[in-house]
Amino acid sequence: MNASNAAAVSVNANGVQIADDIVRRAAALRAQVRIGEIGERLIDCGAETIGSLELGRLLGEICMGGLGTVTLTGSSPLPKWPLGVVVHASNPVVSCLASQYAGWTIQDEVTGFFALGSGPARALSRVEKLFEELNYADNHPRACLVIEGDKAPPPTVAKLVADACKILPSNLTILYAPTSSLAGSVQIAARVLEVALHKAHELHFPLDDILDGYGATPIAPPSPDFIKAMGRTNDAIIYGGHIQLFVRGTDEDAEQLANALPSSQSRSYGKPFAETFAEVGGDFYKIDPLLFSPALVTVSNVQTGRSFNAGKLASDIVDASFA
Amino acid sequence: MNASNAAAVSVNANGVQIADDIVRRAAALRAQVRIGEIGERLIDCGAETIGSLELGRLLGEICMGGLGTVTLTGSSPLPKWPLGVVVHASNPVVSCLASQYAGWTIQDEVTGFFALGSGPARALSRVEKLFEELNYADNHPRACLVIEGDKAPPPTVAKLVADACKILPSNLTILYAPTSSLAGSVQIAARVLEVALHKAHELHFPLDDILDGYGATPIAPPSPDFIKAMGRTNDAIIYGGHIQLFVRGTDEDAEQLANALPSSQSRSYGKPFAETFAEVGGDFYKIDPLLFSPALVTVSNVQTGRSFNAGKLASDIVDASFA
Amino acid sequence: MNASNAAAVSVNANGVQIADDIVRRAAALRAQVRIGEIGERLIDCGAETIGSLELGRLLGEICMGGLGTVTLTGSSPLPKWPLGVVVHASNPVVSCLASQYAGWTIQDEVTGFFALGSGPARALSRVEKLFEELNYADNHPRACLVIEGDKAPPPTVAKLVADACKILPSNLTILYAPTSSLAGSVQIAARVLEVALHKAHELHFPLDDILDGYGATPIAPPSPDFIKAMGRTNDAIIYGGHIQLFVRGTDEDAEQLANALPSSQSRSYGKPFAETFAEVGGDFYKIDPLLFSPALVTVSNVQTGRSFNAGKLASDIVDASFA
Repeated sequence: MNASNAAAVSVNANGVQIADDIVRRAAALRAQVRIGEIGERLIDCGAETIGSLELGRLLGEICMGGLGTVTLTGSSPLPKWPLGVVVHASNPVVSCLASQYAGWTIQDEVTGFFALGSGPARALSRVEKLFEELNYADNHPRACLVIEGDKAPPPTVAKLVADACKILPSNLTILYAPTSSLAGSVQIAARVLEVALHKAHELHFPLDDILDGYGATPIAPPSPDFIKAMGRTNDAIIYGGHIQLFVRGTDEDAEQLANALPSSQSRSYGKPFAETFAEVGGDFYKIDPLLFSPALVTVSNVQTGRSFNAGKLASDIVDASFA
Repeated sequence: MNASNAAAVSVNANGVQIADDIVRRAAALRAQVRIGEIGERLIDCGAETIGSLELGRLLGEICMGGLGTVTLTGSSPLPKWPLGVVVHASNPVVSCLASQYAGWTIQDEVTGFFALGSGPARALSRVEKLFEELNYADNHPRACLVIEGDKAPPPTVAKLVADACKILPSNLTILYAPTSSLAGSVQIAARVLEVALHKAHELHFPLDDILDGYGATPIAPPSPDFIKAMGRTNDAIIYGGHIQLFVRGTDEDAEQLANALPSSQSRSYGKPFAETFAEVGGDFYKIDPLLFSPALVTVSNVQTGRSFNAGKLASDIVDASFA
Repeated sequence: MNASNAAAVSVNANGVQIADDIVRRAAALRAQVRIGEIGERLIDCGAETIGSLELGRLLGEICMGGLGTVTLTGSSPLPKWPLGVVVHASNPVVSCLASQYAGWTIQDEVTGFFALGSGPARALSRVEKLFEELNYADNHPRACLVIEGDKAPPPTVAKLVADACKILPSNLTILYAPTSSLAGSVQIAARVLEVALHKAHELHFPLDDILDGYGATPIAPPSPDFIKAMGRTNDAIIYGGHIQLFVRGTDEDAEQLANALPSSQSRSYGKPFAETFAEVGGDFYKIDPLLFSPALVTVSNVQTGRSFNAGKLASDIVDASFA
């Protein structure tokens, strides 16, 4: 996306539009909407309410700043778990990295609240170091933030978020769904493309050279056990997800990206995520961050016409994880 | 769905909106719209008109009270018949049982008209015993009813329906498509989830514990022979459909449901439906009602995280039926 | 479609609505919009701009006159190239032949501009012989034309198009995308049904007897080499596309159509299109026109209920072409 175009896209305008739609259809989607103490709009998508797969789908589209589509499919990459999502982002860098990535550490010492914020609000606050490398800033009077968790942030945190976004608290929408909920499971599946974008960035592939992309992955059946739920949603992508990226640049770079991207390139690859997590004593930071990526990757270089393929699906590990 | 949310969902408001859309696009969809003698709106979707697959898709969404999505897919569960539908209901009990199920016996002795009514109007009339067990009633001044048949009901019957729904006849829309039409074939395929819900109810699984669900099935090629058409549309689901239900409760109940649900558990299972129908001399009531369900079933218990799988696709029987 | 219905469908009204939507979302879709010298609206979808897969999807829907849907799928007919399109037209003759087919030769001797025009504008100009056989004419004050190419037509050509459509130049929208672009690749994939309709017409199958249809095909990775790009987009359909047509008439005609339609019936079948093109010295007219059709075909006769199947996918040739 060239700079002039980038300026005209507002991930928050798009996201808020979808959030307003959720509010209108809240009963059907089983979302619970309330206005918080300082006027912030809080939408529970799966904590105190059942929520739904469809709500997770919409949550995924909000995360992507309305620049991507999340579709439920009955033919996921794994035939034994056919229910899945197909994700497409016409602007994957802005959609996945400037909006969807859960990169905003939101914490409050007084209340002890902690969450990793995701979604369009990040492109207003721009508090993360990542934004130094993203040629994108949003400018919109309303914002929406997505939290993977079972609690709405307290008013002090809502204030902190609104202030960082430079908006009125009454113009802030916060949506949240725990990992273990129906909506949470779909929302995380919808990250199949985002994790690839993030890993490409870690691998120092030039972000401006990633032009388009799509991904597909099974939807993990929710588990009330947080470790299992987290494990499954990760395994869905790590062992059952595939993506295709359309890039420009040299074939060497494209091939190198394809070879490095698949989860199988990680030293932590090979068993259900929950097991790996237990082995490192629950210390997330001991897990190789390069594990978080799709199983199967195609990188197509539009400047040369060549495609590079690497990785493979591992249905047996998904079966062990989802069982 | 909790009671307060249920009250806020109107399957008729949703259904009428889709029906209005059909009217606006009637020429493109090849629907024929006319106003009947007492002001009722009659939409022929495949009797005197050709109709279309897309019209059947919309008919399916009306049947589901706008709480579900019906999508055409090119990758149905059966590779030899790739054209299919993917059906998702964020609220399967209300969507499939309170609206989609063809449970309203509509008959008129004077004219001899007989039909099984389906769709949102059922949740206004609530004349069926089933509604005693459904925690849902609609309240809306407009209604829409779907009939699988080749004739619009006469004015006397339209009056009967409007009265039962406590609405003005001019606020009633009746859509109809014969089993043998393009739209009819898609509309019935879209019942892949509904038949599972209905069978779960027959098996006394607590309906409140069914939280979400999706299904997929091939679309049967239409046949002008009613028995064949009925046979094929049933076979598409019985031998080619798969579903996943998300439930709560004990694993014992979930596993029992998964094991009991597939069509293969029926004593009538194993041959094209038209053959079975012929064998019982065309007496529908001699066919085991438990036959009417998808071939392959996954039940996922969100309260324990366990999934149970049963049944299998039988592509050879579908091939014999569709040929 | 009967004549009275046909009159009420405006492929240009539908197409212009999608074009207006592209303009509203131009930044996100990476389309470049400008107003030309005589007031014509020019939308670059992939020449000077990157464009996107999503833009190609919308371009496909414009080509089909808004009577069809083009959906991105992650389960195309070829498992090694899962990204694909599913195309459905509720009115395939009007959608594919009166609108989508690239049959309007647009040339200007002064500027040397040459293009094959596609999309709704054709149904206003009706300059092609094909329209003598199509029971359809549009009547709308705005028009949109799609060009597979890397240049907007000069003002003289825009004038020529507007005049032929009997509209004001300021009411004309021209969208263009080169074969080698992301949007171009998707737009051409979306022709999987159209090529079958066109070949059916060449085979003298009565067009009024084609009632409905759908198709699916992989999306070719773009190549900057025009010959390769053209080759791949053709190969996607010729060796990787499948369709189902719903027809009426005799079984003899339906079976004959099914047997004749697949690309394998052509003497030019069997190798990547770019190779065939090279062998004939780049002389398009030496290539058997019957090559341009899907690999796998099902024809279902709704008047008898019988289906006929012919052809097969050739994934190895697609692999050789896309590599």
